Amino acid sequence: MAQENSMCDIGFIGLGVMGKNLTLNLADNGYKIACFDLDQAKVDAIIEQDNEERGEQPPRVFACRSYTELLSRLAKPRLIVLSVPAGEPVDHVCRHLINAGIGADDIVVDTGNSLWTDSLEREANYKGKFIFFSTAVSGGEVGARFGPSLMPSGDPYAWTRIESVWKDIAAKVDPKTGKPIESFTPGKPVKEGEPCATYIGPIGAGHYVKMVHNGIEYADMQLICEAYQIMRTGLDMSPADIAAVFRQWNQGLLNSYLMEISAEVLAMMDSETGQPLVDVILDRAGQKGTGLWTAVGALQVGSPAQTITQAVFARSISSLKSERVAASEVLEGPAKASLNQEEKAAAIEALHDALYCSKICAYAQGFQLMEMASKEQGWKLDFAGIAKIWRAGCIIRASFLQSITEAYEQNEGLANLLLAPYFAQQITRYQGNWRRAIANATLMGIPCGGFSSALNYYDSYRSAVLPANLLQGQRDYFGAHTFERTDKPLGKKFHVEWSLPGRPQVAIKR
Amino acid sequence: MAQENSMCDIGFIGLGVMGKNLTLNLADNGYKIACFDLDQAKVDAIIEQDNEERGEQPPRVFACRSYTELLSRLAKPRLIVLSVPAGEPVDHVCRHLINAGIGADDIVVDTGNSLWTDSLEREANYKGKFIFFSTAVSGGEVGARFGPSLMPSGDPYAWTRIESVWKDIAAKVDPKTGKPIESFTPGKPVKEGEPCATYIGPIGAGHYVKMVHNGIEYADMQLICEAYQIMRTGLDMSPADIAAVFRQWNQGLLNSYLMEISAEVLAMMDSETGQPLVDVILDRAGQKGTGLWTAVGALQVGSPAQTITQAVFARSISSLKSERVAASEVLEGPAKASLNQEEKAAAIEALHDALYCSKICAYAQGFQLMEMASKEQGWKLDFAGIAKIWRAGCIIRASFLQSITEAYEQNEGLANLLLAPYFAQQITRYQGNWRRAIANATLMGIPCGGFSSALNYYDSYRSAVLPANLLQGQRDYFGAHTFERTDKPLGKKFHVEWSLPGRPQVAIKR
Repeated sequence: MAQENSMCDIGFIGLGVMGKNLTLNLADNGYKIACFDLDQAKVDAIIEQDNEERGEQPPRVFACRSYTELLSRLAKPRLIVLSVPAGEPVDHVCRHLINAGIGADDIVVDTGNSLWTDSLEREANYKGKFIFFSTAVSGGEVGARFGPSLMPSGDPYAWTRIESVWKDIAAKVDPKTGKPIESFTPGKPVKEGEPCATYIGPIGAGHYVKMVHNGIEYADMQLICEAYQIMRTGLDMSPADIAAVFRQWNQGLLNSYLMEISAEVLAMMDSETGQPLVDVILDRAGQKGTGLWTAVGALQVGSPAQTITQAVFARSISSLKSERVAASEVLEGPAKASLNQEEKAAAIEALHDALYCSKICAYAQGFQLMEMASKEQGWKLDFAGIAKIWRAGCIIRASFLQSITEAYEQNEGLANLLLAPYFAQQITRYQGNWRRAIANATLMGIPCGGFSSALNYYDSYRSAVLPANLLQGQRDYFGAHTFERTDKPLGKKFHVEWSLPGRPQVAIKR
Repeated sequence: MAQENSMCDIGFIGLGVMGKNLTLNLADNGYKIACFDLDQAKVDAIIEQDNEERGEQPPRVFACRSYTELLSRLAKPRLIVLSVPAGEPVDHVCRHLINAGIGADDIVVDTGNSLWTDSLEREANYKGKFIFFSTAVSGGEVGARFGPSLMPSGDPYAWTRIESVWKDIAAKVDPKTGKPIESFTPGKPVKEGEPCATYIGPIGAGHYVKMVHNGIEYADMQLICEAYQIMRTGLDMSPADIAAVFRQWNQGLLNSYLMEISAEVLAMMDSETGQPLVDVILDRAGQKGTGLWTAVGALQVGSPAQTITQAVFARSISSLKSERVAASEVLEGPAKASLNQEEKAAAIEALHDALYCSKICAYAQGFQLMEMASKEQGWKLDFAGIAKIWRAGCIIRASFLQSITEAYEQNEGLANLLLAPYFAQQITRYQGNWRRAIANATLMGIPCGGFSSALNYYDSYRSAVLPANLLQGQRDYFGAHTFERTDKPLGKKFHVEWSLPGRPQVAIKR
């Protein structure tokens, strides 16, 4: 029991799915961890798992039964990591740490899915009590266990203390290929490669970037789902056939973790019914809020992240299952077309290109949003650096992120990802099929809001003239909101004394 | 000067564009108004205008130089109307009224574009000091002057005091035809007809409904703009030609104030350049926030108001003018197709139907949002009543609102406007052209995000099965988020122990 009394390197509070796996990842990397959870059973479970996994080695994880005990196990200045639900639970733990005697130099790192503005408030609120730092984590439970993507932000001094820890446990990328170096064996962490952990900026920045990551993830998932639905409903393909198409796509431009697991989901059979599992999964999507936050953030900063937002709405409408079933019996669609083999093959190829081009636009929207927020907040985000740490560990990891990394490395002031020569060329090359896929789905009556919002983003962004001139005329007409002119300096406002027959403008004096 | 000392019926604070016109409207209807504005010149101006317009009649509007003087001019319990910018100015005035000695029974009515949650807070904050009531106003300056649409909410006692005033000044509808009865002559208000003022519900409800009205207005305007742009860019039509099409459309199903003024804007020539004015108006749209609030509200309550949100994003992207001009030289689109006369006529007809069907969907989204908010807040909104007061006075007034009124009168529990027999039939009839118009714009490279988001809403809502089953599979795969099954009770959660080659699930213990 002597080891039980030795000092630990890190305190860890919150041993849910993410917390437990982050703790074991830290342990694999040689850190001694003092653990606490309000649920005693979770503490017992991780001690047991550590006993199993460490074999003959000395214990790496140590149980604490109180906040006070946890603090007593750590050398000052202490390093404490939280993995508790976002919102009030974070503050609950912070208050208890203060009561238990945490010191002003101690560092508390929040790794939950916190709202970025909450992190801003917490840094200010806990100033003088301890140093509040944040690190957004992506990668789900497998990422947490064997290498997540980490987005730390806050006090630069705290970062010097945490940097080596985060770089040890983060996912790693082969610097030559830009591809993940993976190991899924407990006790054998990947030591070589570029770690997916980089300092993002002042407090709030890391969680903002993670929020946008999740927004992009929503879009990515929705776009894959639309390709699936068009094949399933429009082309009458079986889940197994679609899984085969996805596996093939995963070998090329569309290579990504989400594409890989989508194929696995579609290939899975349900042991109970013998049917493809996807056919018995209820089509009612859940959401935990980060996609919604991204959409709200985009609206607030005026960044047209319409494909991300469309993905959030797609989940909302999916949740209205009983209304949809009722509506399906009342609302009519077009008659079903039947395609021959050649047309079907062309339609599948068009879908590939539509998915690829739409994906470029969804990422362009995410990076544009981060840029607008970065300007507003003065964060000076490094977009090549962000793309780099998304190449492995996180849910949207894909070879695609290597192309984005290169785009920003070639031009760090890139106004929009669409303008990077590589992506501009790719869209030029594939847009014919993108347009055809959308036109076909439109005529077939199959919803493809992700695809079409992405195309609308592209076509709007490349329009030197949009019909907002008419809109400004309307606004000036009914509300005297004024307009600018193309032939006069920007910012100079003009107004017309509009009148309608029977509504003399003279009746309204200004 | 004797009349100057007589007591007034109503105190009015804030004499901007809306305030001045509401005051003159009240005066036309026989009310004596005590006026105040921080800007003395505005007070002087309305007195002068009253002198001009009342002719030989005694003065109807009386200048006050302070809050105290305004209170002294009113019999208790006082009725005071505010028309000041939303946000802090409302509270500024309220604080000054308290300092000036307003009474607990006095009523203050906020008519600004306030955020609905601010109204909720104000009712609570000012309780005991005075009765805070709200009335959202639509109709721009002409509406304010000759008959707006009014959406009052708050304390039911206050409503009994204000009801007759609001019904006097509100726009009027011919109960037989559902069409506006209009007069634009000072001193000759419309006295007959159904007034566009109805009690909406508890505080907050009125401004929420007005917020959604504005969200619908954003969508309505954007849809018209898309029809315009497709004709202008895709069909090479002149503004005058498009004005002629809009005037024709305004005679039929698409009859609306916004269609009428859009034709007027397009027909207007610029006196300076001799060109169509719309060609010299800069295509950079402004916004004052209510569309954004509607989109955020829709995201928060989980209501898929995607066309309204798309309209907000369309304004955002329009504001990136210099980026768009630069992008237009880099990003390629499809080659331009040229149409013969017959094809062009068919394309215009398709646009008509696309605009009509998209409009139905935008309104369906707005009403769905109000219903979801009403359920969440316990407001018990009366949708037939709301549609009725939007038939005249407000910006979205249209014969269309009569059809919506009838749909809710026939079935007050209607789950979605799309399910009303009339609208379901209309969409069945016109959807072929709707789909063709979108497919054509998609292939031509002209953005039509409003049209396509509306169609996506329709096709999603009528889909008994959406691809959220695959999405739930993905979420369970990477995040153990679980899923429901089609063959098991709702709410029961299932999880699969997924594994990938090289990633044995046994490595992750739960």
